[in-house]
Amino acid sequence: MADAALFEFLHTEMVAELWAHHSDPGPGGQKMSLCVLEGMGFRVGQALGERLPQETLAFREELDILKFLCKDLWVAVFQKQMDSLRTNHQGTYVLQDNSFPLLIRMASGLQYLEEAPKFLAFTCGLLRGALSTLGIKSLVTASVASLPTCKFQVVIQKT
Amino acid sequence: MADAALFEFLHTEMVAELWAHHSDPGPGGQKMSLCVLEGMGFRVGQALGERLPQETLAFREELDILKFLCKDLWVAVFQKQMDSLRTNHQGTYVLQDNSFPLLIRMASGLQYLEEAPKFLAFTCGLLRGALSTLGIKSLVTASVASLPTCKFQVVIQKT
Repeated sequence: MADAALFEFLHTEMVAELWAHHSDPGPGGQKMSLCVLEGMGFRVGQALGERLPQETLAFREELDILKFLCKDLWVAVFQKQMDSLRTNHQGTYVLQDNSFPLLIRMASGLQYLEEAPKFLAFTCGLLRGALSTLGIKSLVTASVASLPTCKFQVVIQKT
Repeated sequence: MADAALFEFLHTEMVAELWAHHSDPGPGGQKMSLCVLEGMGFRVGQALGERLPQETLAFREELDILKFLCKDLWVAVFQKQMDSLRTNHQGTYVLQDNSFPLLIRMASGLQYLEEAPKFLAFTCGLLRGALSTLGIKSLVTASVASLPTCKFQVVIQKT
């Protein structure tokens, strides 16, 4: 399965490249790089959303769409399913991956936690982009309490 | 097969991003972006080279290694084999792909030919990186005479 590795290697290079050449060392520059990564993820997510099985278009329930992301999208990108999905039934969803592949190669330890955001921005965009293709506007953020577990919070934007 | 598309989408975004934010409009800036892409490809190629089947390490003949790239590496990255491999038996190899996946979505027509190099730099690096992991120093360049056919020329650097 060189494919799966290919995506991970390319993602790693992309993060490194954006960090090396793109950002001022200050928080402004880092925020800029995170936005760029999120934007790239968004467009890839949009494009992937269009390629995923057409049955998805038959989805009407929000929860079904979120389940679809946790299963089909995650398998397509990470070769595994999301570990859990919770919702407050008011448009907020928490998707938890207990061993998020893009964090799994990072050494674990509290001192590395601050490095985590740059490995999450692309995937936040990916989720937001796939949702957008499926007709749902959202805000997606990610948080890590202990590596390599990661929670993605999706807040649906009602129009 | 969302996987294959994932790599292509990500590659497209990477090229667009480097072109949008990274380069001066002049030839100097473009050359810089090509170098960055080639470097990213090189490191991904190195990493992939380490993941590909260990039997490869048993290769000793240069030609066998090139055949391996045309078959196993190409399948791992592009889900197809290279279409032909020629050599002058003096360290120069020409690898031809008659429908190179990263060019296939481009409109064809002479006016688009000048856009081609930015879609080839990453893959030149990928080949050079994989060869490097297999113990071979090389120079890799690419040329396009008619889209989406592409030739990669590998010149082995004797030490």
